[in-house]
Amino acid sequence: MPYERENIHRLDAYVPGEQPGYAETGVAGGVIKLNTNENPFPPHPAVIEAIRSVPPEALRLYPPAAATPFRREAARVHGLKPEQVIPTNGGDELLRLLVSVFCLPSGGQAVSEPVFSQGAVLETGSSARRSGGVGMTNPSYSLYGVLAGIHDTPLTVIERNADYSLPVDLAEQWNQAGCRLAFLVNPHAPTGRIESLETLEAIARQFQGVLVIDEAYVDFAPQDALPLIRGENGLRNVLILRSLSKGYSLAGLRFGYGLGHPVLIAAMDKARDSYNTDILSQIAATAALRHRDQIAQGWEQVKAERQRLTAALAALGFVVLPSHTNFLLCTPPVGGPGAKALYEGLKARNILVRYFSAPRLADKLRITVGTPEQDDAVLAALRELLAPVPA
Amino acid sequence: MPYERENIHRLDAYVPGEQPGYAETGVAGGVIKLNTNENPFPPHPAVIEAIRSVPPEALRLYPPAAATPFRREAARVHGLKPEQVIPTNGGDELLRLLVSVFCLPSGGQAVSEPVFSQGAVLETGSSARRSGGVGMTNPSYSLYGVLAGIHDTPLTVIERNADYSLPVDLAEQWNQAGCRLAFLVNPHAPTGRIESLETLEAIARQFQGVLVIDEAYVDFAPQDALPLIRGENGLRNVLILRSLSKGYSLAGLRFGYGLGHPVLIAAMDKARDSYNTDILSQIAATAALRHRDQIAQGWEQVKAERQRLTAALAALGFVVLPSHTNFLLCTPPVGGPGAKALYEGLKARNILVRYFSAPRLADKLRITVGTPEQDDAVLAALRELLAPVPA
Repeated sequence: MPYERENIHRLDAYVPGEQPGYAETGVAGGVIKLNTNENPFPPHPAVIEAIRSVPPEALRLYPPAAATPFRREAARVHGLKPEQVIPTNGGDELLRLLVSVFCLPSGGQAVSEPVFSQGAVLETGSSARRSGGVGMTNPSYSLYGVLAGIHDTPLTVIERNADYSLPVDLAEQWNQAGCRLAFLVNPHAPTGRIESLETLEAIARQFQGVLVIDEAYVDFAPQDALPLIRGENGLRNVLILRSLSKGYSLAGLRFGYGLGHPVLIAAMDKARDSYNTDILSQIAATAALRHRDQIAQGWEQVKAERQRLTAALAALGFVVLPSHTNFLLCTPPVGGPGAKALYEGLKARNILVRYFSAPRLADKLRITVGTPEQDDAVLAALRELLAPVPA
Repeated sequence: MPYERENIHRLDAYVPGEQPGYAETGVAGGVIKLNTNENPFPPHPAVIEAIRSVPPEALRLYPPAAATPFRREAARVHGLKPEQVIPTNGGDELLRLLVSVFCLPSGGQAVSEPVFSQGAVLETGSSARRSGGVGMTNPSYSLYGVLAGIHDTPLTVIERNADYSLPVDLAEQWNQAGCRLAFLVNPHAPTGRIESLETLEAIARQFQGVLVIDEAYVDFAPQDALPLIRGENGLRNVLILRSLSKGYSLAGLRFGYGLGHPVLIAAMDKARDSYNTDILSQIAATAALRHRDQIAQGWEQVKAERQRLTAALAALGFVVLPSHTNFLLCTPPVGGPGAKALYEGLKARNILVRYFSAPRLADKLRITVGTPEQDDAVLAALRELLAPVPA
């Protein structure tokens, strides 16, 4: 009998986007990497400078346990109070903390695999009637479901409409399944779609648990959900996730943070690792937010390039969903090689994009918006791959 | 009703050693800080150099998810296989992972506070008869109990003997309480005592769960527990914790790792955050292990200074426990101001040591071994505080 809990033993771990050669050396080599939504532009020089000037003494000592200087800076930038901010070791830690703090584990009773069916409330099997689990939509970031599996809490997956919009009774379905926490990534991954503030507010007001609005891609979008949590009348059950990985070109740093009502933040502060962010990332992240206005000019470049890439893919016959992120979800032209073959063809040319074999996604590619040079390379390769084979 | 789980709502969070002024600025200021067992010497220059030469491109991209280069280096240094190594965001993450992977949560039923009684098996109340929880000894690192509380799993606390040695039936008591995981910090905190390899092996062979040997302080000790997990006949239920915080003067970096049987490591790899260590700490930690032989010379300095401080405290009338760590647990002379008053008197002089109000510790001080200058300062201050008040 294994020592680990039964649910961990059965678990299929989350699989991050591939990094061929990279895991060995820490360098991406000659590969054009458009598969994990990194920002194509380098981090701001002030961030690099902040890291390089960290005194050895700061490494010798334990870091500020609560990362108070970062909380202050994030509060200033977002028009919130410092007690509305919790910094985490990447957005991943925040997602895991949310599940473990707000959701009820099954207590060692087996929770069967989530059942996917058409258009109805989709719940895990034996524990389906228990309250206390995680709600999400499909398609969405698959890590949410993995985290529910690790915590051994029920998972309720609601299918999005054909155009990936949200069912009007989404919150009601989560409530009926007894979800205590629900994840909405907005702008949406992997489609790039965005929901209005009114839609988000209506869901939050109707949902009886904590609504997590995952804004990992918000820096490339026209609006954010901060108005929902600002001021005296801010909603008490909304938690917004932010990440420095995409907007700030700092995926290597592992730094994210949560924003919400002080009562939600305080509960998570009790459960996080005592010193969950290190001194280098605290200093670098604070420097990054301090230079937000300059960094935001890069977001405009990404948006302009996103528009150019969308048009160029459409010209090649792709159906491209309008995106408010730094990636595009697109369907290759009918009669061509198909998504999987294109993914493999690109890979053979040292260009990585993301292919999901999941339902509703298996006919599509997700392509990160790169530099103009990288995007020209992927377009040229696709043009080749789509060209009719000479007789 | 709060949104968070009942056990989190009731929880008293772990309180790290105080850092007055420090949490605000990230700099310890004029304080002599001998309260959280940091190494008094600076990190190795090669570590600083490794951090300063990280290319911006490495920050832009996601880090190697499994930190493979670090696993290789740790395996080389310790005479193990890379699949016996799991790097974590500080030792804290490893401890939390261990509890969440191997222990059964109560499933939302209230687990009452652990009951402390004299010399018997001490268990939490309502769930005491359920198997699946955490075993520890008292006194020990209080975080173990906090982590059991966060996970909502039963906690069994076995009192150490009067001289802080282990009860001969320790493993049996943990077995009877149904513990699936047990923590032994060795060398022991907060006493500095060390158990022999034979004792550890006997406990591991008798214990039916996973035995965690927390070697946070092992760099200052004459022996380690690695022989227990090496080679084909390595024990399958022993997991050794290592930290770069003390031995490598890198508390600010938050980097620890676990060593054990590949099956234990694989289970934890499934449950850790996808990218749990950032690129800067991966590179710095790998550089640190690569220079282990040079860094080890500093451990000899700490040991020599430990001996000097022990003798000097004894000359002042303190009873000092023999220590194999970088701190001393000592009882002030009878008839003097007592531990708490000395702690406060030192604090008023900008010298921080650790005072625990817990049973068996309330009459003692824990003093980190500092530089000769720092230790001279604490000795001079104690001399003053112990001097009879002039009439």
